[in-house]
Amino acid sequence: MATLQDIGVAAGIHLLTALIFLFAFAILRLQPINDRVYFPKWYLKGLRESPRDVSTSVGKFINIDWRIYIKFLNWIPEALKMPESELIEHAGLDSVVYLRIYIVGLKVFVPLMVLAFTILVPVNATSSISDAEKDDVGFSDIDKFSISNVSEGSNRFWAHVLMSCVFTIWTCFVLYKEYEMVESMRICFLEAQHRRPDQFTVLVRNVPADPDESISEHIEHFFRVNHRDHYLTHQSSLRGGSFGSLGVHFWKVVFNANKLSKLVKKKEAYQNWLDYNQNKYVINPKKRPNMKIAVEHERILKDPKAIMPVGFVSFKTRWGAAACAQTQQSKNPTIWLTEWAPEPRDVYWQNLPIPFVELTFRRLVISVSVFSLFILFMIPIGFVQSLATIESIKKNAPFLKNLIELKVVKSFIQGFLPGLAMKLFLLILPSILMTMSKIEGHTSFSEIERKTASKYYYFILIIFFFGSILVGSALQDFDARKELKDLGDSPTIVLKKLGVLVPMRATFFITYIMVDGWSGIAGEILRLIPLIMFHLKNSLLVKTDEDREKAMDPGSVAFAEALPRMQLYFLLGLAYSVATPTILPFIVLYFGFGYFIFRHQVINVYEQKYESAAAFWPDVHYRIIISLLISQLLLLGLLTAKNAKDSAPILIILPFLTIWFHKYCQNRFEPAFSRYPLEEAMAKDTLERATEPGLDLKQYLANAYVHPMFKDDDELDECEKELLSWRENDYKVLTKRTNTPIDTTASTSTTFLIER
Amino acid sequence: MATLQDIGVAAGIHLLTALIFLFAFAILRLQPINDRVYFPKWYLKGLRESPRDVSTSVGKFINIDWRIYIKFLNWIPEALKMPESELIEHAGLDSVVYLRIYIVGLKVFVPLMVLAFTILVPVNATSSISDAEKDDVGFSDIDKFSISNVSEGSNRFWAHVLMSCVFTIWTCFVLYKEYEMVESMRICFLEAQHRRPDQFTVLVRNVPADPDESISEHIEHFFRVNHRDHYLTHQSSLRGGSFGSLGVHFWKVVFNANKLSKLVKKKEAYQNWLDYNQNKYVINPKKRPNMKIAVEHERILKDPKAIMPVGFVSFKTRWGAAACAQTQQSKNPTIWLTEWAPEPRDVYWQNLPIPFVELTFRRLVISVSVFSLFILFMIPIGFVQSLATIESIKKNAPFLKNLIELKVVKSFIQGFLPGLAMKLFLLILPSILMTMSKIEGHTSFSEIERKTASKYYYFILIIFFFGSILVGSALQDFDARKELKDLGDSPTIVLKKLGVLVPMRATFFITYIMVDGWSGIAGEILRLIPLIMFHLKNSLLVKTDEDREKAMDPGSVAFAEALPRMQLYFLLGLAYSVATPTILPFIVLYFGFGYFIFRHQVINVYEQKYESAAAFWPDVHYRIIISLLISQLLLLGLLTAKNAKDSAPILIILPFLTIWFHKYCQNRFEPAFSRYPLEEAMAKDTLERATEPGLDLKQYLANAYVHPMFKDDDELDECEKELLSWRENDYKVLTKRTNTPIDTTASTSTTFLIER
Repeated sequence: MATLQDIGVAAGIHLLTALIFLFAFAILRLQPINDRVYFPKWYLKGLRESPRDVSTSVGKFINIDWRIYIKFLNWIPEALKMPESELIEHAGLDSVVYLRIYIVGLKVFVPLMVLAFTILVPVNATSSISDAEKDDVGFSDIDKFSISNVSEGSNRFWAHVLMSCVFTIWTCFVLYKEYEMVESMRICFLEAQHRRPDQFTVLVRNVPADPDESISEHIEHFFRVNHRDHYLTHQSSLRGGSFGSLGVHFWKVVFNANKLSKLVKKKEAYQNWLDYNQNKYVINPKKRPNMKIAVEHERILKDPKAIMPVGFVSFKTRWGAAACAQTQQSKNPTIWLTEWAPEPRDVYWQNLPIPFVELTFRRLVISVSVFSLFILFMIPIGFVQSLATIESIKKNAPFLKNLIELKVVKSFIQGFLPGLAMKLFLLILPSILMTMSKIEGHTSFSEIERKTASKYYYFILIIFFFGSILVGSALQDFDARKELKDLGDSPTIVLKKLGVLVPMRATFFITYIMVDGWSGIAGEILRLIPLIMFHLKNSLLVKTDEDREKAMDPGSVAFAEALPRMQLYFLLGLAYSVATPTILPFIVLYFGFGYFIFRHQVINVYEQKYESAAAFWPDVHYRIIISLLISQLLLLGLLTAKNAKDSAPILIILPFLTIWFHKYCQNRFEPAFSRYPLEEAMAKDTLERATEPGLDLKQYLANAYVHPMFKDDDELDECEKELLSWRENDYKVLTKRTNTPIDTTASTSTTFLIER
Repeated sequence: MATLQDIGVAAGIHLLTALIFLFAFAILRLQPINDRVYFPKWYLKGLRESPRDVSTSVGKFINIDWRIYIKFLNWIPEALKMPESELIEHAGLDSVVYLRIYIVGLKVFVPLMVLAFTILVPVNATSSISDAEKDDVGFSDIDKFSISNVSEGSNRFWAHVLMSCVFTIWTCFVLYKEYEMVESMRICFLEAQHRRPDQFTVLVRNVPADPDESISEHIEHFFRVNHRDHYLTHQSSLRGGSFGSLGVHFWKVVFNANKLSKLVKKKEAYQNWLDYNQNKYVINPKKRPNMKIAVEHERILKDPKAIMPVGFVSFKTRWGAAACAQTQQSKNPTIWLTEWAPEPRDVYWQNLPIPFVELTFRRLVISVSVFSLFILFMIPIGFVQSLATIESIKKNAPFLKNLIELKVVKSFIQGFLPGLAMKLFLLILPSILMTMSKIEGHTSFSEIERKTASKYYYFILIIFFFGSILVGSALQDFDARKELKDLGDSPTIVLKKLGVLVPMRATFFITYIMVDGWSGIAGEILRLIPLIMFHLKNSLLVKTDEDREKAMDPGSVAFAEALPRMQLYFLLGLAYSVATPTILPFIVLYFGFGYFIFRHQVINVYEQKYESAAAFWPDVHYRIIISLLISQLLLLGLLTAKNAKDSAPILIILPFLTIWFHKYCQNRFEPAFSRYPLEEAMAKDTLERATEPGLDLKQYLANAYVHPMFKDDDELDECEKELLSWRENDYKVLTKRTNTPIDTTASTSTTFLIER
């Protein structure tokens, strides 16, 4: 068990690291040469131009005005300047609500900390337990302020029970207020939005095959009949203008362009090499991806199988779209599935054509895989945890004994290594989980990210939180093994044992908070990897301003990873708030620090890939509730084990009330995050009809939902050329074979080939 | 442990009882005097008139044609004659699907029985265990054919594992086919239906208060705006005609007539006494409920609080209603709640005005109450179970020792008493659970019944099935206590112990099947209580033909009770199919016998109170799946305890596959039971517009949703009179006070008072 001194050393190291990072950032960001790394958002918005005008040539790259270095922290007030409403305009609602979670953290934990330090810490510190008990739990300095310092069956536990009730009520109160706030922000945001294609559009999946009609015709007929007054068009005769000469409308349905988009990605990867080494493909032209892309383009246009049983159906009014998205269309609930279309940027095209049965099967496979992954991960984590304790190193590598007996090294190993190791393992995971969520078959990026976040959270909860409590405790020098021996016991006994183990692992989690929550976040603002990559690209590849634009990597808040990681702090804070309040200042510092850093990043750096209007909030709320429940149950277990017979039973009602509170919030607020109320839709329709009576909605929606492979202008030009050349070939063949007049035949056959 | 002989005696007793009941029924039903007891459905349908014309006066009451008594079982072929389609017409889809569950039981268990008896029974019977093991499990005759006869770690368990897989697949297959069938029957039934008010109507709850408008106006305005093209009318200006002289439309909103309906019920109860003792209320006229009803009627019409924030909104088309019912109306998801209106007979008026917050609170309270009830019930059941074993009687009442040593008495106590006692306890329960479900606040009788069924099932599952396995085993003469001692163990150990205990309790469940499934069902056809009640009423109260009509009590299938009780047999059958196949013939006999009896009852007796078009099927399916899961887990526990290390692990995949199967069925079929697909609605609308272009829908819907207290003609007449008298009083007061012209003032003030 680490002593107070160990923790002091670690805190010193991490505060120092954080300060070094901040200072490095302060210096680097002031150099004009790095401007595009630290302020890319402004460039992307077109509000900032290339290096500021400085007279000296050195000044173009390095800032030599020494006065500016003195105020190296003045980005913090800058980051706080922008008001929230402007920030929504500037960065979107997702980012703003993400920042609000840090504020929620402060709102929850600052009062908790104050209460805990004025009431619980004195109660704990003035108590004292017998030496026998001390030995029993592996007592250390830090435990003087924790519940471990209260002897068994003491009446002082009433304070803990009471505080637990107060903490629960306070957390629920903050959560309720915040849910209310986020809901109204979302509604305002959606209301204030201008016309958007997804307001009028419904995604239809699992269109059944029809022997007599093409998929496009089938979609049109179905909705013309069943939404007679509201149907407008569907995924739509795009670029009819630019292809006017061909007279074809081949973007009427969604193409299964998955293979094509893979090739285009490959091409983009090659492009860098291409620019660097222009001659390479001259030698071997067949390998050039461009050729392959042309072939694939052609294949898609010809192959009837490439047309997916999917469509984006647009309606005349928002009301019509809202009604269609929320209702069941056909008797068979597995065909003609309608849902509110994601915004165009957010569509995950690869997953659109998955049929219903396959989808349920995929979910089964993925849940089994996630389960297996959980078990698989337990092994390396256990190993790392065991390595990270002094005693096991002594045992496994006796030659290091003298070295690790040194005070500093020992503190480093105990205070730093376990947190770091865990952090590294947690870094690999998100990409695995993201791939799994993609395989699960969700249709939008935002949904995939939400599902990944959910998996990742359970991972953190089970493997990281419970796993490191159990495994770590079992391998500590003192004998927690006896606690674990019969863990295959009844739930109540497991709960009791877990409850006892939780306070023992407080130091481990404190070190983790310092590594991840302090140094890690300070590292975030430094953007070391984007910095290096930018300069590499800049010196090797960039020739034009456009290239420089491309070399910028603004990054974004990766919600799939950022949300669950942040929620771990809620879990730790709540679980330890009563048992070991010492952890609370560390958590409060994390939330406060994180808020500044991320506010700066959101304003100056990140560029979100899509906007979901805070669709992730219900999950955030739900997971904080889970943390609350876990903390209540663990405390119940701990107090039962501590023989607090009078006071502990009161805690049983807390989980029930919490679950009820969650149900209530769910019913009250959640629909606002998944449905589009008709009243709202009708109001916007009416307003629009009054203000813009001559609006050509069909024209407006025509461009909206096209596979990005076809939408990209460069690609399209290319494709157009290919199509034309292909048509020429076709025409030659036809004229050779039939000798019929050129004009009519060629266009009919092309139309046929394409429309199939 | 009961011997084979004990079971033989019990089977004899129960078959005899059943036969006596059937014979009694055969005789009683042939007496013209009982005709209205045994064939009430035909009377209610108007297809049968009072006693058949028989020349002798005795023949009017008793059938003296002796030849007819010989074929006393000829009701069975009669019951089977009616084809299913005709039966749907005759008795509704609910009853027909209810009967189909018996067929599902046969479809599942007949092949299971055949397989078990050709494969498992030989495997078990040819094995033999050591005497030590025999002692260990309290071996009895019946166990020769059960899995208890196979010694530990034997390779023979492969047969059981294999059979378990086959049984699971077969059950799922039957369930899938049946779900498909029931779904299509439901769709056909709804399609074939004539115009029904609920097809056009949506129930709107939680209408928000508006300071400027009455609730009725508010509803009208909201839907006129937000469903501009579809809104027709709402719960409607009923009987405007008959009240034309008053010029009021006071049935526009749903009245909170709960108190009134209580009074009317009370009045109905008094009515019988009234008829019997006409003079009673002459002495004390104030007590007469009629008076009170008049006062209450008046209060409702005057009191603005009696108008509930609820309305039945009707649309011009089915499409409009379907779209409205499935969508969210307002930004705030707790107001303007719309749902597909229950059919008028099915509305549970008392629960309509419950506000949203109260509703969630009620659910919380009820779930806690159900939980407490579960625990409360454990006590008497344990007591009964302990009494029912010979040894504990010997201990508790030594003076009975000689008596119970008698072979017959012993058999009776072991083979009859436990089942009977349990049956009695289960009889009180449904009414308690029904009350709870009503308090929960569901808006239709069918939903209340479904929720009650759900609670009742969990009760049967936990208290009856698991409870009697545990408690019963613990109190048996052999030492099962050691198995139970540490039941607060890990789930795997609990499972193992439960698995071991299950086959031990086979005889108990067999006796239960005989009591409830054989004698009980035979008792059902005899209708002893309705028979007695009818003759009592007939001789004391009946004067007119109308009275006689009222004295008939056709009863109905009480789904809340009947479904879970039937599903217990699925649970028993599946749980014992592998371990103790001896139980299967008893279960098959139950399903077969039940099918005949209930088919007869459905055709000739029962009159369902409402028609939900088999809305209960998803629950039935779900609960059979639960039974299947439990059976798999129990077998897994048993085989683990039996040391079948090679074969048992295969069973782990079965629950996962079963859950997946259930998810699939849920997605595939369940929407058909809760939603009205738009394609369907549009098709019916189009057809109707073509065939009946001049239909006055408003007129048609005007009468549909009126509180039954006002709808009843007798009541209404009374009410009308009261209203008139009340108006007269009002008029007198007004004329006294103001001396303004009578006609205008009176009607305005009345309108005002009523419309508030």
